[in-house]
Amino acid sequence: MPSNPSPFRSIHARFACEVYWGDCDPAGIIFYPTYFRWFDAATWAFFASVGYSPKRMRAEGRSMPLVAADCQFMRPAEQGDRCEVRSTIERFGGKSFVVAHEVVRDDATVLSRGTETRVWGRYLDGAGSPMKGETIGEELKSLFTFIQP
Amino acid sequence: MPSNPSPFRSIHARFACEVYWGDCDPAGIIFYPTYFRWFDAATWAFFASVGYSPKRMRAEGRSMPLVAADCQFMRPAEQGDRCEVRSTIERFGGKSFVVAHEVVRDDATVLSRGTETRVWGRYLDGAGSPMKGETIGEELKSLFTFIQP
Amino acid sequence: MPSNPSPFRSIHARFACEVYWGDCDPAGIIFYPTYFRWFDAATWAFFASVGYSPKRMRAEGRSMPLVAADCQFMRPAEQGDRCEVRSTIERFGGKSFVVAHEVVRDDATVLSRGTETRVWGRYLDGAGSPMKGETIGEELKSLFTFIQP
Amino acid sequence: MPSNPSPFRSIHARFACEVYWGDCDPAGIIFYPTYFRWFDAATWAFFASVGYSPKRMRAEGRSMPLVAADCQFMRPAEQGDRCEVRSTIERFGGKSFVVAHEVVRDDATVLSRGTETRVWGRYLDGAGSPMKGETIGEELKSLFTFIQP
Repeated sequence: MPSNPSPFRSIHARFACEVYWGDCDPAGIIFYPTYFRWFDAATWAFFASVGYSPKRMRAEGRSMPLVAADCQFMRPAEQGDRCEVRSTIERFGGKSFVVAHEVVRDDATVLSRGTETRVWGRYLDGAGSPMKGETIGEELKSLFTFIQP
Repeated sequence: MPSNPSPFRSIHARFACEVYWGDCDPAGIIFYPTYFRWFDAATWAFFASVGYSPKRMRAEGRSMPLVAADCQFMRPAEQGDRCEVRSTIERFGGKSFVVAHEVVRDDATVLSRGTETRVWGRYLDGAGSPMKGETIGEELKSLFTFIQP
Repeated sequence: MPSNPSPFRSIHARFACEVYWGDCDPAGIIFYPTYFRWFDAATWAFFASVGYSPKRMRAEGRSMPLVAADCQFMRPAEQGDRCEVRSTIERFGGKSFVVAHEVVRDDATVLSRGTETRVWGRYLDGAGSPMKGETIGEELKSLFTFIQP
Repeated sequence: MPSNPSPFRSIHARFACEVYWGDCDPAGIIFYPTYFRWFDAATWAFFASVGYSPKRMRAEGRSMPLVAADCQFMRPAEQGDRCEVRSTIERFGGKSFVVAHEVVRDDATVLSRGTETRVWGRYLDGAGSPMKGETIGEELKSLFTFIQP
């Protein structure tokens, strides 16, 4: 008799990106904050894919401020490398959530792996005003829940 | 009997900056958009120096959107180069103004020269809302006017 | 009797890009150095499209350092705007060339227009060593020449 | 009779920085990859402070590629905030080391805390060529060791 609810299982998102000349440093490889720029863009794209487009986020005064971020760098990337950020929701908390990202080059090499912990927030008084965390409801969670076909 | 008003003569501003590892590209020299990041920061610092701090700009709902920008690159800069952006107001128009910038390394070498043309703007309805240009008054101009001691 | 050679007519290149959250400033619009990052990436993609991939450029010790860059900003861009940089070679000089860029949003609005003047260069002694301009030959020009079908 | 060597105790470094307009996002606060750009610049400055300037690093063909990086974000930072990155060597390993960073605003508020794990590397064949980790010797460690006065 199972006493546990089945654990949350996330859908997957894919965000295409490429290493440009200006993303690289004098060592000829990607300057590491670039990965975090990609993570950020990938998370916004992930939310857009379930209905929370930048336009809707703005209209509803929402934002997703960061609590923490980390990344492990496995392989150096070079200019011209075409990549994909593969993202899932690793965990939903009360007002926060964790997005797990994996950067994979088009030859299937994993370049880096990391997470972002974010608050599901709303501006108290229009864009740019202070933000407050909001309880993450079942509706939001369900948008990211993988349903076995 | 002088028929001409004396032309506007700008005060000078100095903004310290340094070329960091991540500002450079695989050629080992500064990635050129870095100069424009410096120009932008130098203009904000210039305005802060005459009383328009970021805090005041926010409180008054002001911004300075760009109309045009250009830069000539004279000498390559490398990681570790300490520089100064020297800025003047080149011209005040009705609602816009031109800031001239010169980037000088600490050995007096001029690395680049450029301009930014900006509108003196105000948000119509709080930060992030549409902006509208405002007429540049004598008071603002006088803050930037060099007075022969 | 025509005494003039027909003028150079460039092929066109298209580089897809999008305005991300981190490309925007507190005014909620694109931070202008982003356009120059796009110009740079678009030029590299343009050269890759005619056979000069980043990999080949590296192997041959080539680079394209900037002499000048400029941009006019017509319309503000917001997070989520999908754009295209449309590029042509505006002019080939002896050792330098001018790339003209136009940034067009997917609703056909022109957001900005600018140029980059670059030297066709080669490292004297491996990546990161000093660069020297090389004469632009007919072969390179022909790769960018539009041929009436 | 002490059986343990005394543990490594690091000197402290301070790196001054400021939140610029272009470092902020439409929420009006710092775009988080900016912290990692600061961490990187702070680490280079830390090494320069003990004798490993960018110039020497280049001359000796050295680099410090990343293995991992993380950051916790405590308080939002705004344009105009003057900060300091306070760095220590948290740990020296065989060929790698961990730099701990704390970003403190000039009102003593801690904005963020993080670490970078890096390899002490050397290019095998000039800048831009593949890198190889080198054993971190006592000489390097001693440069970062705090000596009770």
